[in-house]
Amino acid sequence: MKLATLRNGRPDGQLVIVSNDLSRFVSAGRIAPTLQAALDGWDALAPGLSALAAQLEVGDIAGQVFEAKLAHAPLPRAFQWIDGSGYMSHLERVRSLKGSKDAELQSVRPLLYQGASDSLSGPTDPLPIYGDDLALDFEAEVAIIIGAVPMRATREQASAAIRLVTLINDVSLRRLVADDLQNGFGFFHSKPSTAFAPVAVTLDSLGERWRNNRLHLPVRVEVNGTLYGQPNAGVGVHFDFLDLIVEAARTRNLAAGTIIGGGTISNAHDETLPIKSNGIGFACIAEARTAEKAKFGGARTPFLKAGDEVRIFAVDNGSAPVFGSIAQRVEAGNIPV
Amino acid sequence: MKLATLRNGRPDGQLVIVSNDLSRFVSAGRIAPTLQAALDGWDALAPGLSALAAQLEVGDIAGQVFEAKLAHAPLPRAFQWIDGSGYMSHLERVRSLKGSKDAELQSVRPLLYQGASDSLSGPTDPLPIYGDDLALDFEAEVAIIIGAVPMRATREQASAAIRLVTLINDVSLRRLVADDLQNGFGFFHSKPSTAFAPVAVTLDSLGERWRNNRLHLPVRVEVNGTLYGQPNAGVGVHFDFLDLIVEAARTRNLAAGTIIGGGTISNAHDETLPIKSNGIGFACIAEARTAEKAKFGGARTPFLKAGDEVRIFAVDNGSAPVFGSIAQRVEAGNIPV
Repeated sequence: MKLATLRNGRPDGQLVIVSNDLSRFVSAGRIAPTLQAALDGWDALAPGLSALAAQLEVGDIAGQVFEAKLAHAPLPRAFQWIDGSGYMSHLERVRSLKGSKDAELQSVRPLLYQGASDSLSGPTDPLPIYGDDLALDFEAEVAIIIGAVPMRATREQASAAIRLVTLINDVSLRRLVADDLQNGFGFFHSKPSTAFAPVAVTLDSLGERWRNNRLHLPVRVEVNGTLYGQPNAGVGVHFDFLDLIVEAARTRNLAAGTIIGGGTISNAHDETLPIKSNGIGFACIAEARTAEKAKFGGARTPFLKAGDEVRIFAVDNGSAPVFGSIAQRVEAGNIPV
Repeated sequence: MKLATLRNGRPDGQLVIVSNDLSRFVSAGRIAPTLQAALDGWDALAPGLSALAAQLEVGDIAGQVFEAKLAHAPLPRAFQWIDGSGYMSHLERVRSLKGSKDAELQSVRPLLYQGASDSLSGPTDPLPIYGDDLALDFEAEVAIIIGAVPMRATREQASAAIRLVTLINDVSLRRLVADDLQNGFGFFHSKPSTAFAPVAVTLDSLGERWRNNRLHLPVRVEVNGTLYGQPNAGVGVHFDFLDLIVEAARTRNLAAGTIIGGGTISNAHDETLPIKSNGIGFACIAEARTAEKAKFGGARTPFLKAGDEVRIFAVDNGSAPVFGSIAQRVEAGNIPV
């Protein structure tokens, strides 16, 4: 089952079910008006949502034409957004950046930060640029949306709580990351609104593409149509999603609708940009730049500038993007509330 | 106008209006079912809420008996909880703690951290203790609940957005604070569920008690009936609430229903515990302990243990507590989801 939230003028949008090929949708309003409502009553409501999805899939319901631009983030505002760091090669590559912490701290327990969840971005929302000097970057990640998890949850409890999987762009202002790390209070200013893929997908719908608590698909990142990376989200995972849930619940309960990011997808390799069509590359510019510094003595790939378009999507053997595409254009100036 | 959220078996509870003396309440359900709904449509809904409050106040509506134990946090789950640090004497006292940052970093811009907002505690919810070694502490703070604020807001925009004021207990696990600071990713594990006073109060209802973007009232903290502190929340404010809102909106919009804490209330003085009945004292145990270390060479006041009761309330010339009382008992073991 694939779920999306369409813009309807309300803060939480309207829950819809989207066909597997992302071509059509049907309102889920008679079962749950919003995704949060569906997550609040998941055990009771999921069977009805599944039945509706099946009707849409076989054509018993015609549905309406689905387009990414109709979609909000699956949860346009969420009660919690936690980002983890599951891929060690991302940490190894960015560790050289000013203010980053020691390796030993990062390999035993996953690092987690509390992200802002009050205004998440849809897949085609603009990426506001805040001035040339803030070093606007993207980070392509897999994220899960979970049901309630009790404090000190076991891996079994964590596993049972995973409801949906999606992709995100964890937008980062690199020049503010060092300040935030230095303050020690977390990534407050350096992480503006995180953007989400058009649909979130249940585990049964992912089938074999979800194994061992991780997504086994390459996630492609393109900037202005040029391939920057296609690392496999199932490769190089030091901490999987159960590790992240269990760590997040160490001293507190997690409410239904909590979103947990797996960290910037990163596979170990010695490439630099531009990569070949079968290369692995990078899911953020910061990693590409540190690889360039190591190889050439200086960074070559610029951070994002106004007019750039970032595209993030997961492909499965050439079929349509599983979660749809995040396609954000960098725009100068402010964005409205 | 004083608002509260009563437990009704739903995650967001039921919005009620409470009389000024906190003795009676009336449901606000015909205007807004929840506080978040009221905040989402504040301009349209606030006049109706005020009219209902006036009817309750003059006795045109009898109402029902209000008790703190009926109340959730005003927002039992919120889309954003940001804690600031407005009182320099708190930072000065705790700066000696392992892992804390330099003074210079803290006096120019207010430090902010993103707190967990998915499961906030009501005024009489138990304080779970997580083992003897985690150093369970309280922090008494003033907090505001705001309407939407655009990125890069002016002080005027920030001022216009303040909707409600309340008190909180920013529960802290001191032994995990150093680890969290060391990681640089923010106070993730060291800050379990924050607790809230029974009611949140509009600025017009606070009148002269709210001036210069801060609350001018002593906030009393008692542990097992012993006075630990009664610092005035209007004294020693290095960063006021407008400073905190503007800083929070530096790189992002803030959605309606965002909660911002003013930091542990702290007034400069040379006291140690026990304090006199007219003493100032401390709004957290960590400050009391650092004062003891400075004076006696070692800390004497223990952190909280099972069975302890923490009470936090704001008094106004001997009248009933303005926001009601946070009264939390420390309980060993886990708490249910």
